Amino acid sequence: MTSFMDKDFLLNTDTAKALFDEAKTMPIFDWHCHLSPKEIYENREPENITQLWLYGDHYKWRAMRSYGIAEKYITGDASDKEKFFAFARVMPYLIGNPMYHWTHLELQRYFGIDTPLSEKTAEAIWDAANAKIAAGGFAPRDLIERSNVVCVCTTDDPADTLEYHALLRKETDFSCKVLPAFRPDKALGVEAAAFPTWLAALEKVSGRAIDSFAALKDALRCRMDLFDEMGCRASDQAFAYVPFTPYDDAAADAVFQKAKRGEAVTADEADGCRTALLQFFAAEYFARDWAMELHIGPMRNNNTKMFREIGPDTGFDSIGDDLIAYRLSRFLDSMAQRGQLPKTVLFTLNPRDNYVIGSMLGNFQTDEASGKLQFGSGWWFNDHIDGMREQMRTLGNLGCLGTFVGMVTDSRSFLSYPRHEYFRRILCALLGDFVEQGLYPNDLDTLREIVRRVSFENARDYFRLS
Amino acid sequence: MTSFMDKDFLLNTDTAKALFDEAKTMPIFDWHCHLSPKEIYENREPENITQLWLYGDHYKWRAMRSYGIAEKYITGDASDKEKFFAFARVMPYLIGNPMYHWTHLELQRYFGIDTPLSEKTAEAIWDAANAKIAAGGFAPRDLIERSNVVCVCTTDDPADTLEYHALLRKETDFSCKVLPAFRPDKALGVEAAAFPTWLAALEKVSGRAIDSFAALKDALRCRMDLFDEMGCRASDQAFAYVPFTPYDDAAADAVFQKAKRGEAVTADEADGCRTALLQFFAAEYFARDWAMELHIGPMRNNNTKMFREIGPDTGFDSIGDDLIAYRLSRFLDSMAQRGQLPKTVLFTLNPRDNYVIGSMLGNFQTDEASGKLQFGSGWWFNDHIDGMREQMRTLGNLGCLGTFVGMVTDSRSFLSYPRHEYFRRILCALLGDFVEQGLYPNDLDTLREIVRRVSFENARDYFRLS
Amino acid sequence: MTSFMDKDFLLNTDTAKALFDEAKTMPIFDWHCHLSPKEIYENREPENITQLWLYGDHYKWRAMRSYGIAEKYITGDASDKEKFFAFARVMPYLIGNPMYHWTHLELQRYFGIDTPLSEKTAEAIWDAANAKIAAGGFAPRDLIERSNVVCVCTTDDPADTLEYHALLRKETDFSCKVLPAFRPDKALGVEAAAFPTWLAALEKVSGRAIDSFAALKDALRCRMDLFDEMGCRASDQAFAYVPFTPYDDAAADAVFQKAKRGEAVTADEADGCRTALLQFFAAEYFARDWAMELHIGPMRNNNTKMFREIGPDTGFDSIGDDLIAYRLSRFLDSMAQRGQLPKTVLFTLNPRDNYVIGSMLGNFQTDEASGKLQFGSGWWFNDHIDGMREQMRTLGNLGCLGTFVGMVTDSRSFLSYPRHEYFRRILCALLGDFVEQGLYPNDLDTLREIVRRVSFENARDYFRLS
Repeated sequence: MTSFMDKDFLLNTDTAKALFDEAKTMPIFDWHCHLSPKEIYENREPENITQLWLYGDHYKWRAMRSYGIAEKYITGDASDKEKFFAFARVMPYLIGNPMYHWTHLELQRYFGIDTPLSEKTAEAIWDAANAKIAAGGFAPRDLIERSNVVCVCTTDDPADTLEYHALLRKETDFSCKVLPAFRPDKALGVEAAAFPTWLAALEKVSGRAIDSFAALKDALRCRMDLFDEMGCRASDQAFAYVPFTPYDDAAADAVFQKAKRGEAVTADEADGCRTALLQFFAAEYFARDWAMELHIGPMRNNNTKMFREIGPDTGFDSIGDDLIAYRLSRFLDSMAQRGQLPKTVLFTLNPRDNYVIGSMLGNFQTDEASGKLQFGSGWWFNDHIDGMREQMRTLGNLGCLGTFVGMVTDSRSFLSYPRHEYFRRILCALLGDFVEQGLYPNDLDTLREIVRRVSFENARDYFRLS
Repeated sequence: MTSFMDKDFLLNTDTAKALFDEAKTMPIFDWHCHLSPKEIYENREPENITQLWLYGDHYKWRAMRSYGIAEKYITGDASDKEKFFAFARVMPYLIGNPMYHWTHLELQRYFGIDTPLSEKTAEAIWDAANAKIAAGGFAPRDLIERSNVVCVCTTDDPADTLEYHALLRKETDFSCKVLPAFRPDKALGVEAAAFPTWLAALEKVSGRAIDSFAALKDALRCRMDLFDEMGCRASDQAFAYVPFTPYDDAAADAVFQKAKRGEAVTADEADGCRTALLQFFAAEYFARDWAMELHIGPMRNNNTKMFREIGPDTGFDSIGDDLIAYRLSRFLDSMAQRGQLPKTVLFTLNPRDNYVIGSMLGNFQTDEASGKLQFGSGWWFNDHIDGMREQMRTLGNLGCLGTFVGMVTDSRSFLSYPRHEYFRRILCALLGDFVEQGLYPNDLDTLREIVRRVSFENARDYFRLS
Repeated sequence: MTSFMDKDFLLNTDTAKALFDEAKTMPIFDWHCHLSPKEIYENREPENITQLWLYGDHYKWRAMRSYGIAEKYITGDASDKEKFFAFARVMPYLIGNPMYHWTHLELQRYFGIDTPLSEKTAEAIWDAANAKIAAGGFAPRDLIERSNVVCVCTTDDPADTLEYHALLRKETDFSCKVLPAFRPDKALGVEAAAFPTWLAALEKVSGRAIDSFAALKDALRCRMDLFDEMGCRASDQAFAYVPFTPYDDAAADAVFQKAKRGEAVTADEADGCRTALLQFFAAEYFARDWAMELHIGPMRNNNTKMFREIGPDTGFDSIGDDLIAYRLSRFLDSMAQRGQLPKTVLFTLNPRDNYVIGSMLGNFQTDEASGKLQFGSGWWFNDHIDGMREQMRTLGNLGCLGTFVGMVTDSRSFLSYPRHEYFRRILCALLGDFVEQGLYPNDLDTLREIVRRVSFENARDYFRLS
């Protein structure tokens, strides 16, 4: 029997252990996350472990609700200690859940605590963890530097001022680069009630009236120039489904005018305008050598009652199942035909579609980059041993695993960097299995190179981290 | 090499063996099956093993047809012995099929026969099994009690009189509770040719005219009251797809009137009426604290020729692939908004959708129950090692495995209880793997508690078995 | 640690090794491939390994593009040696890809080269392989006979003259049968711009005017007669989706007339005409006792730019995700109702649908053949360890693995026969796992019989190879 989460956690072969010795030396480049540049800049010390763990992490909230914990102890007005105890009580029943591993990796790596968390151990862990926090080293920048993170890409709206990114660039004593990433979901959400409000914010930050689709594109182009100056190397868009309804500029403008006036826009019109915008964005990304990330599949805010009570991103999203192959193919082809398809990272939230995505890549690969089209790592509901392993096996079966740009946390928590370690252990275990089962030569030099590439170097080169 | 199906069958680690020692002591609560209360009440002894195995089991019929056995030896006029021999001949070629295991578990547990069944051993097994049957102990109630079953929930139409349930309640020498479960598929099938006939039956059993949608709901409400008095704790509905076309009562009534007159109803109208009924049912279930089971995905009666010859439920159903995420979310949300979402168990026949279901649960969990939303166990075409293991891994990855209400047989056979044993062995093997791979602490107290809960206690509490 | 791809490659248990000793003695019947009868007849010696490996193999082209190799070194004007080196450079990064295994199986089996291919070993392997080629034994018929292939079924258009099949029948010194298979994709593609041209070719080869749907069927019937005379035992059709829009002959004729004149045909019209044709074909196949293969799921020619530059079948196809269950069921049922459903092999390119296909079989099994409905082996993007193992597990779970007709190469390369070896090793490993885990008796006689059947005998009987 292997000990619980010891130094060889997940490393089930000697080859895996040897490879992880290489992997663990590599820095972290977290090229897609939801960390707040403001929080990084302000760099406040937390008061207790509940603030670090439970104040913003909807993964944990879902887990607690699944067990039957009352909302009071999740997002309600219970005390921090009560919330911690409620979480501790649930923990043993999360057997098989990646949160069980994340939690204990975080306790081990940041707090030096090896005890499994449960109702019985909650008091001792509460005290020990908070004593550590009181001793310092748990402010955002501390945690980032302790984790050997050399760069993070945040997720920023086009109307964002990037003021905290600007401030952070002047902080010479902070070793980690904090780069913006361009996330124009609100621009693409032309049918949303909030579109006119967002548009007004964009007008304000751009200092110009936006009275046409052409003017919208001009304003967005200016924002992209600013993002580029601030070091942006990636964009991100998330869809419940992939839109592809080709509209010319005149048709897109007609929809824009309706949307701007807050008038109802049909689903087809929204898709047409969205497609035109997406093609505009892709061309601009190509021109700037930015990578285009597509996060496909979330179905958001399923619980209307809770959305009204506590808002979005609170743990009420799940996996959608719209069909993606045809429209995704047509969108990518439309850009390839124009010679303007940027480097593209395709993520799927529904693991049903791993093989669709894995085979889609090959349709558009060129020598413009090593792995120009990428299959994004197991993400959100797939961010676990099964999901990450399956994503890598699929990519291996259908494409070139050696060019994979690897892991992102996609996280809002400064404690989530052990997920890179988790990923690397899973990667090393998979490669170790290949070798020890006779499926790949026992050529440690090449294997170590592949581990370095997938852990860090491929992403460094793909996103042009200088 | 592990011996064929010995006492450690499927228990591939020491931890798994230790946990199964706990699991095997737990009683069986088979909260969803298709056993006949009439047969339980009448309690007739079978004459031979063919009557037990092959008279009603369409799983076996399919397997025999797949090998190329003629219908004569399946549902036709061949002798019982000929049918047994035909089945025995197929058996060795069913390598990898759960029926191979079910068959041998049944031979071992009920007949004390350890010999693998094949053409060669058929004669000896035919004789030995029939001798055992002749010696007694194979009537329905014998088999139920020998299997340590404390409760079964049958599947009953709203128009059913529940007379055999009433009779069984008076049988003081039978230790197993037999509770009805409310299955209103015929009420929901407003577009079916048989709808007016079913409605007439409901009118008769309710003693009232049903001339409106409101009257239909009243009649159904009365039936639910009766079911509740008879101990009903669960309802069940099965869909090829999840309907969600919101209709108000007036619109539903218009469709009802057409359906009652036997007029054609469009697919949209049927879905509208069905949605209104389903929302009515859900609210009633919530009021009675019944659990709502949704069995999603069967595509039935694919073979028209055989349907005409031998009817439904004869082995000509298969897995559908309609998209489910959006409408299922909207239906559940419509009830959550009204504050009337009952405890709900979501089953999917298409394992493609395991992750959609597994993540859907989290959208609607509350503290009204531990695991208020449940992911139903691997069922029908998923009732095998791969399917059950994958369902539990998915639930573990996305939710809280410790609150899982576990296995059901969904069976028409009194010999099918070893499927609970099969499930428990798979559960213990999975938990054993977690522990022995260092993914969970070697905390046998907690692990045994989880095993007891998933084997029996969670279902006992969830369905309020007193 | 197991050595890299040694004699026990993939055979991870003693039982697997024992079974492969049986499997390896069986001949190969490659009942679906894309080999050129012309090339077999002309039997030209290749000049170097690049001609064998890289001149026509779009699997390798995709892999090279995925790494970032320029098109010049793939399908462009680089020298054969440069292309070989470019491929060698990519090889180590294809860890986890079946091509890594195919490549080394081919080097081992045909060239006696055990060295892993990489940039470092490329020069030595280039020289050694080409020296072997120069010494002879690498012409198509040599490779076929060296591989113990007793029969191949090629893929032939109805308008094909089959002249090379006729010539090959006269070659008495060639031990392998080369049979045509009927592939009417161009007949079914009534909406394609090329349809009138194809029709003209069919008119020419049939020596008759085809001015109606009835005349089209007559002409095709004559071609089927010729195919049958030439030994045809199988047909093949490939679809991005399964069509089922029932049209009578008059409606089909109206579409045919439009299509013949080169006029635009709507998607619905095309499906209607296609369905009528498909039902006609199925009935004709039934009458001739041919098997009907349906290859479901490819989404072809996704990259318009590359399609224009280098045409179809060059590595720009991927996996589609249309829904298949309902229409496939209705099509098969329409033939079963007429009593004219031929033996049918269902292949799915999207492994998401394995369970839909695996359960569909059972709806239409009869005693007309052992395994009348077949689940085709893991194919194209599923032709790897995971894909083949998953296909066999699914078939085992849902049907009768012992009646499986097994592997096809689906290949254009004369070096691809080791894929049958690859399949057989995976089969033996799977059966070995069942036995050694106690899931199936250690009955080597029966297991060897199953191995012989799945490796060769089932296909021999199913396709009536005399």
